[in-house]
Amino acid sequence: MAKVVRNARVTYNNVPTGNLELGKHLVYDDSATINLDNVPLNGGILIKAVALSVDPYMRLMMLSAEDTALNAKGMFLNAELSIFGYGIAAVLRSEVSNIRPGQYIHVDELEHAEYSVVTSMTGVRVVDRNTRLPWSVYAGAAGMTGQTAYFGWKEYAPVKKGSTLYVSTGGGAVGSMVIQLAKKDGLRVIASAGSREKVEFMKEVGADVAFNYKETPIREVLTKEGPIDIYWDNVGGDTLDAALENMSVGGTVIICGQIAGYDDDGVPAHRLMKMVYGDIHMVGFGFNNLEYKYLDEFYATIPPKLENGEFKFREEVYYSLEKVPEALFRILKGKNEGKCVVVLSDY
Amino acid sequence: MAKVVRNARVTYNNVPTGNLELGKHLVYDDSATINLDNVPLNGGILIKAVALSVDPYMRLMMLSAEDTALNAKGMFLNAELSIFGYGIAAVLRSEVSNIRPGQYIHVDELEHAEYSVVTSMTGVRVVDRNTRLPWSVYAGAAGMTGQTAYFGWKEYAPVKKGSTLYVSTGGGAVGSMVIQLAKKDGLRVIASAGSREKVEFMKEVGADVAFNYKETPIREVLTKEGPIDIYWDNVGGDTLDAALENMSVGGTVIICGQIAGYDDDGVPAHRLMKMVYGDIHMVGFGFNNLEYKYLDEFYATIPPKLENGEFKFREEVYYSLEKVPEALFRILKGKNEGKCVVVLSDY
Repeated sequence: MAKVVRNARVTYNNVPTGNLELGKHLVYDDSATINLDNVPLNGGILIKAVALSVDPYMRLMMLSAEDTALNAKGMFLNAELSIFGYGIAAVLRSEVSNIRPGQYIHVDELEHAEYSVVTSMTGVRVVDRNTRLPWSVYAGAAGMTGQTAYFGWKEYAPVKKGSTLYVSTGGGAVGSMVIQLAKKDGLRVIASAGSREKVEFMKEVGADVAFNYKETPIREVLTKEGPIDIYWDNVGGDTLDAALENMSVGGTVIICGQIAGYDDDGVPAHRLMKMVYGDIHMVGFGFNNLEYKYLDEFYATIPPKLENGEFKFREEVYYSLEKVPEALFRILKGKNEGKCVVVLSDY
Repeated sequence: MAKVVRNARVTYNNVPTGNLELGKHLVYDDSATINLDNVPLNGGILIKAVALSVDPYMRLMMLSAEDTALNAKGMFLNAELSIFGYGIAAVLRSEVSNIRPGQYIHVDELEHAEYSVVTSMTGVRVVDRNTRLPWSVYAGAAGMTGQTAYFGWKEYAPVKKGSTLYVSTGGGAVGSMVIQLAKKDGLRVIASAGSREKVEFMKEVGADVAFNYKETPIREVLTKEGPIDIYWDNVGGDTLDAALENMSVGGTVIICGQIAGYDDDGVPAHRLMKMVYGDIHMVGFGFNNLEYKYLDEFYATIPPKLENGEFKFREEVYYSLEKVPEALFRILKGKNEGKCVVVLSDY
């Protein structure tokens, strides 16, 4: 008897234009089933989603095929498919030689479905959970978001003791890791976020100056506490401009994301001329392209520090696939109070 | 008998806001005199302006003291002073040990006045005119504009044979030098400008693809001829966006200026998120900060090539100080057909 089970998923309803609206653009669909014993693997693996990372960039993937300008990777809306993101999955069956049933994998493009067949092993990596951290953490602080911070910091931050870093979204999954990496390297850290709780968390993880940008204008703080030697940008737009206006000569901007523009057609920055006056270097990076260089080092270093409390993190964990649209909505509005992860399996 | 002569100058009338208007913002004033024999030098030098370089960035200097955002160097409007720019001057008297009367100097902040006393030697360099090139060229292709191209190219262009460069304002003083440096290094060059004459000149200096952006949309050309490995930006705004949309992964943007925004409060760029997808590096640079590294090499290399015709240039030379406002206006409108220089002395 082949084992046929429900295979719920989150998929598209309409192409979002402007703000993502709950109940309009994404739908939870539990009508499909899958035959776990007989579904063809075509040389790939059958996996069960365990923990899904919900991240701002997912909004950017929700583009029509025509909008190629922002859509550099060609990952656009396809109403036939589930949405996807980073996450952890359990391997149920495998036709790949070095991946075995019972193993767990970190997947770059994991379908937001209970089960899926993966045929390309690009972006698939077996993860050894060698600590007592739950899998939700391996989808967050020990997953893509923590890795983004770690890779970008290692590769691009011109670390000098006594330099000043400014990080926007310092209360977030990437930002709070950046704060901790910078403090470990002896930098002075200015960090901003949009709620009192996030400000408290930023102080807890070591930020020297932590402020709520909704209460105190960014320029006011940076004029007083700057100039900035390194700016870690998760926001773009006017926040980037405010940072550029307060950079020291020879400063570095690391662009990790531009959340201010994800609902729209890219967020404008006006102060790039400041780069000419100030010999500013600005670098964008795709997390995936640095995996080969830092991933082993990351897994050896960061999960133990998360477990023993040397590095801190906050999670906002949901236990139902249905919650994905709401989680994404909360992130885009800056309402989440920790790294958003949707856990599907009680593993 | 002390020698008292007219000392005409160009100065400010009103702070320009928005477009520079002729006859409104800048005035030619010939009411002052100077005593060439007795004017105190205060340890400096008395100089006579020979050739003044008129450049787009001068518009940016015309800011009120309050506008600190763009005004990174604090060089703002002061109605008591002449305007200033790069240029060549003859030394008449000197209290500086290594500068002698009869020598010629390249000055970073040369007053647009017939005579002036300079007390700070920062940005002052004795120039040996060892070729048959006129001084106008030493204020242009062999001066700041040529040096900007040379320094920026040498320091920041990741040169690989077969790479593709796109340069906007490729018909200009900086842009045309960049084209020639890139061709010499074996790159394929796409270049844009705003007139038929400039397109012809870009072809003449070696551009593989030269087009008039007023007739052919930039995105159309770049989609067909790209992707771009290096973009040399003199424009900013939508031109920068079009380039970002067509960069190859790991590409480099060298920001030399942002002429599209000089009349306004900075020009917006919307596509910085493309830097994240594409591992794009963007660098701004101040010409002055690279002098120490490349200036001797530049003088040894470029003027001989300009003289023997290996490197080409175009000039638009005016022979009256009164013409400075008109020349600047033409540049900001993209109407000049060569490097604008105002020559004051028949030396």
